[in-house]
Amino acid sequence: MPKDVMAGDAAALKARFLAVRERSEALAAGLSAEDLCVQTMDDVSPGKWHLAHVTWFWETFLLQPHKVGYAVFDDRFSFLFNSYYEAVGDRHPRPERGFLTRPSLDEVLAYRCYVTAAVAEFLDAADADTLRKVGTVLKTGFAHEEQHQELFLTDIKHVLSRASFPEAAYPAGRHETSPILASAPAPDWVRFKGGLDVFGHASSSFAFDNEGPVHKAWIDPFELATRPVTNAEFLAFIEAGGYREPRYWLAEGWGVICEEGRAAPFYWRKTDGGWMEYTLHGLEPLDPDAPVCHLDYYEASAFADWAGARLPDEREWELAARAYDPARGRWANPDRRLHPMAPDDEGPLLGLFGEVWEWTRSAYTAYPGFKPVEGAIGEYNGKFMCGQYVLRGGSALSPPDHLRATYRNFFPPDAQWQMTGLRLARDV
Amino acid sequence: MPKDVMAGDAAALKARFLAVRERSEALAAGLSAEDLCVQTMDDVSPGKWHLAHVTWFWETFLLQPHKVGYAVFDDRFSFLFNSYYEAVGDRHPRPERGFLTRPSLDEVLAYRCYVTAAVAEFLDAADADTLRKVGTVLKTGFAHEEQHQELFLTDIKHVLSRASFPEAAYPAGRHETSPILASAPAPDWVRFKGGLDVFGHASSSFAFDNEGPVHKAWIDPFELATRPVTNAEFLAFIEAGGYREPRYWLAEGWGVICEEGRAAPFYWRKTDGGWMEYTLHGLEPLDPDAPVCHLDYYEASAFADWAGARLPDEREWELAARAYDPARGRWANPDRRLHPMAPDDEGPLLGLFGEVWEWTRSAYTAYPGFKPVEGAIGEYNGKFMCGQYVLRGGSALSPPDHLRATYRNFFPPDAQWQMTGLRLARDV
Amino acid sequence: MPKDVMAGDAAALKARFLAVRERSEALAAGLSAEDLCVQTMDDVSPGKWHLAHVTWFWETFLLQPHKVGYAVFDDRFSFLFNSYYEAVGDRHPRPERGFLTRPSLDEVLAYRCYVTAAVAEFLDAADADTLRKVGTVLKTGFAHEEQHQELFLTDIKHVLSRASFPEAAYPAGRHETSPILASAPAPDWVRFKGGLDVFGHASSSFAFDNEGPVHKAWIDPFELATRPVTNAEFLAFIEAGGYREPRYWLAEGWGVICEEGRAAPFYWRKTDGGWMEYTLHGLEPLDPDAPVCHLDYYEASAFADWAGARLPDEREWELAARAYDPARGRWANPDRRLHPMAPDDEGPLLGLFGEVWEWTRSAYTAYPGFKPVEGAIGEYNGKFMCGQYVLRGGSALSPPDHLRATYRNFFPPDAQWQMTGLRLARDV
Amino acid sequence: MPKDVMAGDAAALKARFLAVRERSEALAAGLSAEDLCVQTMDDVSPGKWHLAHVTWFWETFLLQPHKVGYAVFDDRFSFLFNSYYEAVGDRHPRPERGFLTRPSLDEVLAYRCYVTAAVAEFLDAADADTLRKVGTVLKTGFAHEEQHQELFLTDIKHVLSRASFPEAAYPAGRHETSPILASAPAPDWVRFKGGLDVFGHASSSFAFDNEGPVHKAWIDPFELATRPVTNAEFLAFIEAGGYREPRYWLAEGWGVICEEGRAAPFYWRKTDGGWMEYTLHGLEPLDPDAPVCHLDYYEASAFADWAGARLPDEREWELAARAYDPARGRWANPDRRLHPMAPDDEGPLLGLFGEVWEWTRSAYTAYPGFKPVEGAIGEYNGKFMCGQYVLRGGSALSPPDHLRATYRNFFPPDAQWQMTGLRLARDV
Repeated sequence: MPKDVMAGDAAALKARFLAVRERSEALAAGLSAEDLCVQTMDDVSPGKWHLAHVTWFWETFLLQPHKVGYAVFDDRFSFLFNSYYEAVGDRHPRPERGFLTRPSLDEVLAYRCYVTAAVAEFLDAADADTLRKVGTVLKTGFAHEEQHQELFLTDIKHVLSRASFPEAAYPAGRHETSPILASAPAPDWVRFKGGLDVFGHASSSFAFDNEGPVHKAWIDPFELATRPVTNAEFLAFIEAGGYREPRYWLAEGWGVICEEGRAAPFYWRKTDGGWMEYTLHGLEPLDPDAPVCHLDYYEASAFADWAGARLPDEREWELAARAYDPARGRWANPDRRLHPMAPDDEGPLLGLFGEVWEWTRSAYTAYPGFKPVEGAIGEYNGKFMCGQYVLRGGSALSPPDHLRATYRNFFPPDAQWQMTGLRLARDV
Repeated sequence: MPKDVMAGDAAALKARFLAVRERSEALAAGLSAEDLCVQTMDDVSPGKWHLAHVTWFWETFLLQPHKVGYAVFDDRFSFLFNSYYEAVGDRHPRPERGFLTRPSLDEVLAYRCYVTAAVAEFLDAADADTLRKVGTVLKTGFAHEEQHQELFLTDIKHVLSRASFPEAAYPAGRHETSPILASAPAPDWVRFKGGLDVFGHASSSFAFDNEGPVHKAWIDPFELATRPVTNAEFLAFIEAGGYREPRYWLAEGWGVICEEGRAAPFYWRKTDGGWMEYTLHGLEPLDPDAPVCHLDYYEASAFADWAGARLPDEREWELAARAYDPARGRWANPDRRLHPMAPDDEGPLLGLFGEVWEWTRSAYTAYPGFKPVEGAIGEYNGKFMCGQYVLRGGSALSPPDHLRATYRNFFPPDAQWQMTGLRLARDV
Repeated sequence: MPKDVMAGDAAALKARFLAVRERSEALAAGLSAEDLCVQTMDDVSPGKWHLAHVTWFWETFLLQPHKVGYAVFDDRFSFLFNSYYEAVGDRHPRPERGFLTRPSLDEVLAYRCYVTAAVAEFLDAADADTLRKVGTVLKTGFAHEEQHQELFLTDIKHVLSRASFPEAAYPAGRHETSPILASAPAPDWVRFKGGLDVFGHASSSFAFDNEGPVHKAWIDPFELATRPVTNAEFLAFIEAGGYREPRYWLAEGWGVICEEGRAAPFYWRKTDGGWMEYTLHGLEPLDPDAPVCHLDYYEASAFADWAGARLPDEREWELAARAYDPARGRWANPDRRLHPMAPDDEGPLLGLFGEVWEWTRSAYTAYPGFKPVEGAIGEYNGKFMCGQYVLRGGSALSPPDHLRATYRNFFPPDAQWQMTGLRLARDV
Repeated sequence: MPKDVMAGDAAALKARFLAVRERSEALAAGLSAEDLCVQTMDDVSPGKWHLAHVTWFWETFLLQPHKVGYAVFDDRFSFLFNSYYEAVGDRHPRPERGFLTRPSLDEVLAYRCYVTAAVAEFLDAADADTLRKVGTVLKTGFAHEEQHQELFLTDIKHVLSRASFPEAAYPAGRHETSPILASAPAPDWVRFKGGLDVFGHASSSFAFDNEGPVHKAWIDPFELATRPVTNAEFLAFIEAGGYREPRYWLAEGWGVICEEGRAAPFYWRKTDGGWMEYTLHGLEPLDPDAPVCHLDYYEASAFADWAGARLPDEREWELAARAYDPARGRWANPDRRLHPMAPDDEGPLLGLFGEVWEWTRSAYTAYPGFKPVEGAIGEYNGKFMCGQYVLRGGSALSPPDHLRATYRNFFPPDAQWQMTGLRLARDV
């Protein structure tokens, strides 16, 4: 996390803060208290929980330590809405988040108002010195709430898909709902010569701790596909028997797909009328040109093996994506459709940001020289550096202005409920 | 089920029907959509599901076969709200009842209105011949909805106890909430001489199929305790190390309490201020004179063994309870407190009905000569005659006029979330 | 257990003792140390464990309390070879019995020799008073070791069936191995008028505690099938879709067969050459006339329902079998084939003893007035009176002279690895 | 794997082959058929299985494809003793390896003789061209059988520790059994300046496929501890509450230790007489100066965090260990004690090879440019490159001449039954 003095003044920070808060509430609009309450699997958190948890973060890391005389909204909430910070005390068990009928949605919304107002008041009164002190917490809080906005959408997608028959659509709000059935360009490769280079987040702008420190690494020459793998390409893998042929699969992955009977991406549905895909806009015919999504790491890896290619290393991806940063493209449109589409940006590399999170072959681990930040907020990333893989890019559910070339997302290899796809790489 | 001609006319039946329907809705009043949506364990069904399922029963067994031109409210509901009737088609998986954010509570209440109105209209138009044909379905439907009213309360009790911290109270409505701290009389025995007798439901009034046929059985002389075991008595068992001494326990029960760490009745809470009990009226100090409740069969059996007695056989209980039928006592008060209290009825046997369901030592099995009714409604009881034990009496959550001496309730031996207790018996 | 003075003198008891001990060892002859060591599921105990456990019983209940100056063979064995007697101290965990490579088979055989010699020496020296004191323990020890002889065979059958490919045959010893392909007589019924009668073990000969006390019960008129259900009859049930039709099944049983994919009796194997059955004599073509075996309770109950009949009550069975006791038939031949065959005894009821254990519809529970014996040996039966069903008769694996009309065997309803079948009953 | 022409002639290869085969059998000497049959957890394979599996490897990859007229010993063995090669056909389920009482130990030893003789005969007759063709298979076969020799010892250690009470010692054979209670030198650091360097196996001698290809990587300056962490140091971590303090632990590891109640290394036993450790030579007092062993990755990582250091990257380890290769030290003594001791080799880095496998922080993944070998033997390593961590060095159980600086061992992060420890590293 940057140690620099705060860029921007209190007014700008407050505007940013209010916009982030408002976006969370906008995402929940049109959903019922029931939709926001249930938990359809352990990995999923209820929408209400997300709304409360990000609020707890502001209360715990900004208001309680820094706002003189701040009175907590409800002292039981620390137990209920702490996600994993062991240093902050005991936590409500994750698989029981769906039991929380109390506090009600209305109470959680009142909690949000209370904390939003308190932070706004705090920022109104803050002098430069105070702002310098809380700069990192503020920026982390923005990024944290934005991350939970994406999780809110992936989680509510799972809830809506299990909640009823037929599967319900998310209330669209201002979002475009119709697919633009653009053609995906033919697959092609871009060559990179690699060499000794520098990686990780270097600028003074915000980044998570896991994006640093800046460090050197050697990269052999490689090629990266111009665009993500499409539904049509993944369907060809299925039709070629890809899910029945162990030689494409990691041993652990083969075990998982056999045990769970996985035979297609998570939200694909085979119907009499052909393949459909459940999206946040309802059940739609599979778009052959759209990037394939909701793959786990094993599926991505097996596809790459079948295609005679491999997943990229996370530093290959970063090296290639630098030229496209700050991230451009359709994803930056706040009203865009909540599902990936054939990319429409300018290349040669297309759709790097904002269609699907792209699995890399890099296990999620600390960069050389990494040291967690001291204190509870330092639990943020380091403790999860085991058993997960890095994803790069971003998805159609990522918030505007949230992505960058150094961003490291991470999930366990069997996770399917995130909007995850892949882009091929190969050795030269 | 009685094959007799319908007693009562259409108007009385309609009044009865409307009263049953209204009571279900009254029980849900004051609970939020969230309270009525979640499922806190596989055995628990959400309140909303109960409200819908009993409605589905009326639609499936009364309206669809018998009301000319009846149009179902929503044809997806048959899949969602069938509980176990295999003959009626596929069912939504029980452990996923808590995923049903759709239909919403409002839609379920609309479904109730629609079906209630249709049944009322049907009854208004029914001639004597029609009434004769649907008599059994009607009476079964009343009893079925009443059963689910009790399950609604036991399930919502579980939900409220897991949903928040501290545990929330049920919205009381007209129910008395304060305990009347009456004294329990000293324990005593009533002797019965037994002999060859006749058991099972004999009159022309309604009874479930499992209460018949009437049959002979021989009963040895026995004694039955004048009242249920109290909290104070059960506490003495705990303090004597009852949960740590395998010799009191059935082998299967000892396995369960060791594995799950059970060491007190389900809703007891040990606090710095002594033992408390979670009730539908909130967390209260343990009432030493009230009947102990929320015991499983193993706990009831172990207590009886420790006390030098045993559980009654279900026919012993029935023989003793006949003199007290039609059931009297506090339970018949529709506004009574939703928790057992020291019985205040006239003896010598006290509190037979309406404090706690009393575990018997009788495995739940068919009476001699039992034949299930033909058709889907005949799935009602026979298929569960395995792995469960019979409970007699009724609880503080049982609906008024729902109980009788021949009534056979049944639950698996590890069930704790029902309002279950015990009364001792012994050989002479 | 009878309190009477010991019938027979010390010499006869010693001869009986030595014969029982020798038979256990004869059953193990021809099996390797490996065969006798492994455990193929939690319910199965290794052969070596059975050989040691029955020896531990003699040491613990006869030698230690009664033989002056007796030195235990190895004081660690009490921990290892106690099966469930909580009163005797801690036990080795049941699912880890297959880990016991130590003590080796040779050491266990040495343990047997040591204990056998000590008991023989004890009996040589015992006066009438001593014999009177240990009479119950001795007779219980005989019956206990005989029970484990049958378990030894059912367990080694499971081991051999899982241990290799193709499944290995048990070393036959003197046992007849070829099936006598006799015809089963056409099915027929015998009528019993029932009434008030007396049940349970009455004579002064040995019986387990669960066979008493003698008590009265009323039995309605009933009919019992002349012979057990055959493989051909059960195959007709399968071919009629019996395993796919929930209406024949108890709800709990339907859950089990769906979850585990059960679709035929446990040891049946469908091959290109038709149905085969794994027996202790190897894989054999299914004998259509032999009693079907290795059914669980659910399968027996579903078959009976499909056949328009029901399982007998255990007292119906006892009432009918009295006339055939002391048990006759092929089973009394100590060298008989270790698999059921079409019965060859005299009727009208055929094959009551020694072909298959016959499931009854009676949950395993205490008889009226039952009191467990005081002390550790009193743990014998009472604590298992939950969650099991009574089986009557006996199987082709039961030791000679071990069976009688009042004998109550019991297993959980999903148990398939015992030699269990059924005989139909029906109401008149 | 090297493509070079075979170094050494047929006679040398035969001698090497016979020595490897003989060593496997020597390791099994003194163990009973029972010891070699059972499986005490899914990760453990029975000793008999190891003896057969390595033999199956020779039969499948050398004799069947290359020896004219070779007749397989038993065609069922391919099903039973294939470990994971999907390309070779169906496999016996891993958790059921302990069910294989058949083939018996004697049959497996006969299988070994048969295959050993056939390979020897093949080598006697092989011309240079043939030797060139089978060179890779031969060398892989040597390394493969040696790997299973170490697994044989770690697995039999687990078996003996669970098989009896008290835990049994491994029959020592010629192995030194007494600990040499040498002092561990004070901990110190060696500094490496890092830079751009070349990694992976480069020479023409044998290496596994995962040790290549040779590739460049950049290493920042670092320091490596002069010796592995000792028992005394790990005990200090325990006594400082290390197992109770979540801040030292990876989130996944904290979950595992809480769920399983881990509170000390796997084979440590707390007794009234202080800490003991179960070793293959029996239960011994904990040697404070010996390297700590049987840690999982989480424990190694938590210790390093507590100590203010970190685990080394696998390339740091390789860079540091090059100067010590060919591996020296006590481990080269074939009769050494089967447990780590304070290292006695020459430094500055001590005990790099042959005391404990040292966890690195490197997830097990393909080196840049890695391509699996074509064909079944190519399944060897690549498919396991997920969910595991690299260990470097070697243990007191590793066969002589088996280790080298580029060797990459790998296990899942929760594995404790291997002889695993750690050496600290830190940034400069």
